[in-house]
Amino acid sequence: MAGSTLGTLFRVSTAGESHGPANVCIVDGCPAGLELSEADLLPDLLRRRPGQSTITSARQEGDVPEILSGVFEGRTTGTPIAILIRNEDQRSRDYSEIADKYRPGHADFSFDAKYGIRDHRGGGRSSARETTVRVAAAAIAKKLLHELHGIEIVGFVDQVGDLRLNHPRPWEVQLDEVEANPVRCPDAELAARMQRLIEEVRKDQDSIGGGATLVARQVPAGLGEPVFDKLRADLGKAMFSLPAVLGVEFGQGFAVATARGSEHSDSFVPSQESSILHAPGKIATQTNRHGGMLGGISTGMPIVLRCAVKPTSSIPQDRPTVDKEGKPTTLATKGRHDPCLLPRFVPMGEAMLALVLIDHLMRHQAQSMLRD
Amino acid sequence: MAGSTLGTLFRVSTAGESHGPANVCIVDGCPAGLELSEADLLPDLLRRRPGQSTITSARQEGDVPEILSGVFEGRTTGTPIAILIRNEDQRSRDYSEIADKYRPGHADFSFDAKYGIRDHRGGGRSSARETTVRVAAAAIAKKLLHELHGIEIVGFVDQVGDLRLNHPRPWEVQLDEVEANPVRCPDAELAARMQRLIEEVRKDQDSIGGGATLVARQVPAGLGEPVFDKLRADLGKAMFSLPAVLGVEFGQGFAVATARGSEHSDSFVPSQESSILHAPGKIATQTNRHGGMLGGISTGMPIVLRCAVKPTSSIPQDRPTVDKEGKPTTLATKGRHDPCLLPRFVPMGEAMLALVLIDHLMRHQAQSMLRD
Amino acid sequence: MAGSTLGTLFRVSTAGESHGPANVCIVDGCPAGLELSEADLLPDLLRRRPGQSTITSARQEGDVPEILSGVFEGRTTGTPIAILIRNEDQRSRDYSEIADKYRPGHADFSFDAKYGIRDHRGGGRSSARETTVRVAAAAIAKKLLHELHGIEIVGFVDQVGDLRLNHPRPWEVQLDEVEANPVRCPDAELAARMQRLIEEVRKDQDSIGGGATLVARQVPAGLGEPVFDKLRADLGKAMFSLPAVLGVEFGQGFAVATARGSEHSDSFVPSQESSILHAPGKIATQTNRHGGMLGGISTGMPIVLRCAVKPTSSIPQDRPTVDKEGKPTTLATKGRHDPCLLPRFVPMGEAMLALVLIDHLMRHQAQSMLRD
Amino acid sequence: MAGSTLGTLFRVSTAGESHGPANVCIVDGCPAGLELSEADLLPDLLRRRPGQSTITSARQEGDVPEILSGVFEGRTTGTPIAILIRNEDQRSRDYSEIADKYRPGHADFSFDAKYGIRDHRGGGRSSARETTVRVAAAAIAKKLLHELHGIEIVGFVDQVGDLRLNHPRPWEVQLDEVEANPVRCPDAELAARMQRLIEEVRKDQDSIGGGATLVARQVPAGLGEPVFDKLRADLGKAMFSLPAVLGVEFGQGFAVATARGSEHSDSFVPSQESSILHAPGKIATQTNRHGGMLGGISTGMPIVLRCAVKPTSSIPQDRPTVDKEGKPTTLATKGRHDPCLLPRFVPMGEAMLALVLIDHLMRHQAQSMLRD
Repeated sequence: MAGSTLGTLFRVSTAGESHGPANVCIVDGCPAGLELSEADLLPDLLRRRPGQSTITSARQEGDVPEILSGVFEGRTTGTPIAILIRNEDQRSRDYSEIADKYRPGHADFSFDAKYGIRDHRGGGRSSARETTVRVAAAAIAKKLLHELHGIEIVGFVDQVGDLRLNHPRPWEVQLDEVEANPVRCPDAELAARMQRLIEEVRKDQDSIGGGATLVARQVPAGLGEPVFDKLRADLGKAMFSLPAVLGVEFGQGFAVATARGSEHSDSFVPSQESSILHAPGKIATQTNRHGGMLGGISTGMPIVLRCAVKPTSSIPQDRPTVDKEGKPTTLATKGRHDPCLLPRFVPMGEAMLALVLIDHLMRHQAQSMLRD
Repeated sequence: MAGSTLGTLFRVSTAGESHGPANVCIVDGCPAGLELSEADLLPDLLRRRPGQSTITSARQEGDVPEILSGVFEGRTTGTPIAILIRNEDQRSRDYSEIADKYRPGHADFSFDAKYGIRDHRGGGRSSARETTVRVAAAAIAKKLLHELHGIEIVGFVDQVGDLRLNHPRPWEVQLDEVEANPVRCPDAELAARMQRLIEEVRKDQDSIGGGATLVARQVPAGLGEPVFDKLRADLGKAMFSLPAVLGVEFGQGFAVATARGSEHSDSFVPSQESSILHAPGKIATQTNRHGGMLGGISTGMPIVLRCAVKPTSSIPQDRPTVDKEGKPTTLATKGRHDPCLLPRFVPMGEAMLALVLIDHLMRHQAQSMLRD
Repeated sequence: MAGSTLGTLFRVSTAGESHGPANVCIVDGCPAGLELSEADLLPDLLRRRPGQSTITSARQEGDVPEILSGVFEGRTTGTPIAILIRNEDQRSRDYSEIADKYRPGHADFSFDAKYGIRDHRGGGRSSARETTVRVAAAAIAKKLLHELHGIEIVGFVDQVGDLRLNHPRPWEVQLDEVEANPVRCPDAELAARMQRLIEEVRKDQDSIGGGATLVARQVPAGLGEPVFDKLRADLGKAMFSLPAVLGVEFGQGFAVATARGSEHSDSFVPSQESSILHAPGKIATQTNRHGGMLGGISTGMPIVLRCAVKPTSSIPQDRPTVDKEGKPTTLATKGRHDPCLLPRFVPMGEAMLALVLIDHLMRHQAQSMLRD
Repeated sequence: MAGSTLGTLFRVSTAGESHGPANVCIVDGCPAGLELSEADLLPDLLRRRPGQSTITSARQEGDVPEILSGVFEGRTTGTPIAILIRNEDQRSRDYSEIADKYRPGHADFSFDAKYGIRDHRGGGRSSARETTVRVAAAAIAKKLLHELHGIEIVGFVDQVGDLRLNHPRPWEVQLDEVEANPVRCPDAELAARMQRLIEEVRKDQDSIGGGATLVARQVPAGLGEPVFDKLRADLGKAMFSLPAVLGVEFGQGFAVATARGSEHSDSFVPSQESSILHAPGKIATQTNRHGGMLGGISTGMPIVLRCAVKPTSSIPQDRPTVDKEGKPTTLATKGRHDPCLLPRFVPMGEAMLALVLIDHLMRHQAQSMLRD
């Protein structure tokens, strides 16, 4: 239990560092019979890839996945699927200075405290590079979710700095709206302003935080467990497992702190009377303040959550810090970094949402043996 | 993996419903040799208990724990510790109407969707009554954390409706400040206003949401795993596993969305130069915007997180809903409920923080075999 | 992961010592909708109980189970089922001498080495008393297995000392044949001789070992995982988790060491041509040397395994040993013990077989989502 | 939980098929700071490799491992270690006939029953080829065990057909005695006879079963858990997870069935008076019938177990079977196979022993926090 495995029935184990030879994942538990090839993994890998636009890191990685097992004659066999993605554009020389100095906001110090040794090249295991194989694994999960229940997963950037999109019906956002611009914000006009802000920040040798909304629709009611493994809890964990996420909220989120019970709860209604599309059953809620889960179990309403993502700490300004002996010094992070993590965060967040949902769908299937 | 077990080395499994005979937990993995008796479990059980003040539910429960195993001659033996807490004041008659109608904001509908059957008395397994045994188990964790590293855990209410405490140094709050008033807010004047607001809301036959901050100090650097089992991720899951939590944030939290990298990161300094007390090592950060973890691993700085808790959906007003067949009807929740969950939420949140920390402390211990 | 939980989807966690207040288990993951009451647990508890005949321990225990949760109006709700069995006839005074001396063949020394402290009364956690709640949990598993697939589980004593039953078709043995005599050997004549041998051994103030066969029939093909969690591997673990088991073999077992490949393998045939009854599918094997699993996955043939059980080490003869300081001394184990563990081992072995099968049945169900 | 992960703290996940591109494992939880390179993995891979002598399969595989992560500047970093071993000499054409016919004694039929699809080339996931990466992972475990406690692990062939070595002191066998001949039997004269028998069997187009003993010495007392995760239980599972193992016994093993309690138990004595070498503590047993564990927990005495391994079912004789539709047919297994699995089984058995021991050593470390 050293922390590199997620899920109970659809299990993803990952390995790899930012500047080592490769990242690898093993997906254990994928049902047999799913059509699958490397081509299925590519679209989301391309959305996650650095170098995709002027507002992302300039690191060049092909991110071409190789499936090493678990697929035979174009179909999954039920045995573990190993996926290998080699690192290419590593430029380890960029990182030599930080071997002995702790970058503020990075995991250098906490890794040293934990292990007494660390691969200091580019963040090593703490780098977002590790999410390549999560995204590859989740592409399988997304395909399964869609084939089994028509479940659709979409994420979008809803905030960059002070520019905020308060979408009234986030569960209706479509993938093509999101992919229409490099920021991945479905409001084209706002997206253009966000893009200008990110470019400005980059020129200032700075970075900026933001937020993203993640949605899953057509999720059947009944997923999640009542106590510790609430769907909400497992989704919260999955999102907080992504680099740079400092806040997660579901449905109405932090706004509930000021709400009264008489206003907050969503009334149940027959599905055809609900204002919320995409309810798979005959009972729905009139509104979706609850974000698709009650008691931690899905209601059939769209699942809606938001993540707050910090500005990357890798900026080329000189900042005070200490070295390994605790002596004060200064450090500017060189290398190629994203001035705003949000555009590339979207496919990562979608990946985590998909991985949690497929796992709970399988768990629910196992528990439903006495139901026809 | 049906969701009622938490932890990998310090494992807590729970069972029980709101109106069944009892709640039980099994704590497996507690190190041998800890002095322990039922008296150690009582203080937090009393803080969690209903009926403790005029602003909590009037249900009367003694919540007297019985230790059934794992303790011999006043010390833990290393074998599983089972704790039994019988339900006493169940009044099942209060709940007869909701057998066929779905309470808005409750888990009645999602449980039926999941299981096709449910114990409708008082929320059954989804009731906060289930947290009694979590709090009992966590009392053991707290005692271990304190004996091993002097770790202190304290939570407090920071918001009730629009009344908000923005504490500049939340990691300095002391338990006696929190317990000085029934709201559990360390600002006495604000607490009095919060109490009046809660009483007002109750008279309106309504409920209100709020927020709580949870702090752990003296946590050694190095706890947590780099990828999926980040300390932040496991804490996030633990908090979202509590009833009514719709938002969780660490350190600067959602405010990072508007921050720039040049402002957000906390500089490393020698411990004696830090403005943050309670750093156990020689390297500290100057400020604590990061909330005590970087890369998901503890830094030695105090761990600080916040939860948003919704207003309870159990209010005695008539509201529209549907019955099991999906036919529109109305329902008012009778029974005894908290007009504001926050005062009793504090010991529950502390419990989850303690359970996650002891588990990661033991995981870290196992991994450190090659270090002297 | 402190070792008191078994299973991945149908999970049993146990707690309790031989002379503590009670033994408890939590069964998490039982599908909702199964009719269940304490009466379903009693028959196997009575078969396991001490004091049931002249050839078992004289300890008197009612072993009356109380279901504390997870059952509502006579049906399982899908939430954890907690079962409490209080200890009654504890007679702790019998065990005072062994607080400081290590009984040969017992776990006293290894527990002290592990924990530095131990509940020395009657073996504490290492006592077979702990299997009460396993047997209770497994009664639920047996009921599920039978309702879902008509799976039948039966065990019998096949050896006491030199008296050995080589049953040619063990998979045809019926429960009533087994229960027809206190030894639980389906050959009445041999059973009578076994009983005389056990009584003789008891008079000699000694104990004797033996063997038991365990069978499951109507198990569908396809259960088990290819690599580490082979059905054979999980069954092997489950059997070795019972006290006193020093050998486990499947099908032809240790006899394969002298077999040639041309003789060992069972030919596949259409089911109607097989000599083995109880094959649920259309393809069967002609013979059942393989014991019902190939590649660790069930074939639909009856599962057949054997356990070797050591003579209990608790005998009232003076034997050399050491005390806690390592100083030589002698010790005779007083108290009430079974001169031969086998008759009471049968329901314990059946319990483990049932628990592993239901878990793998649920795992298989979850993996079969893409199959109609 | 699809079965391809072993261990709780030192976790090994594997992927790969006999004739796919590669086998891969991820070792998660290895403590940081261990010197490690591919050279450490090679010796056991060579012992496991086909083509190493005239009595093993002629398949030619370099089995050269590539470490993809978790090692930096020659030391483990505490993060997951991924190991890649590509398949080279696959000759898929050898296996075309068995796409539609079920080989007797193989997992073809049970895989089809489980998954409805299978990689039929050479056994796919059920092939012993999968053990390459287990052996590689275990080489790390062996190194850790030796560095931490001087623990030595050695296995040897003790039986081929009727030729049986009853070693009086198996715990004293040394690796060089084992490696002195291609059979891996430490009795040179018997080994020569075993080799002749295997060659004879091969000429007969047949195969033969056998047995192997596995020993671990210098294991500290106190490893293992009292109930389900007894060290004995986890070792039993690990051995039964290897292909072709139909029996496992510890210490005196199946012979206990005829033993009396007065003879079976090993007396405790001061270590210097014991006839058993390699006891790390001050208390030992006089003899080692118990095989190094009592109550499932290690005693400090050498751990001794035996496995019965069936003759491979892959023999080039025509045998009756059925095809996928259940129609009778015949089949002779072509391809290159071991006439006796035992010589190559030795490093596989050692691997499983090492993996279980390191995991329990780490678990014990985590539990011992309150002991100085």
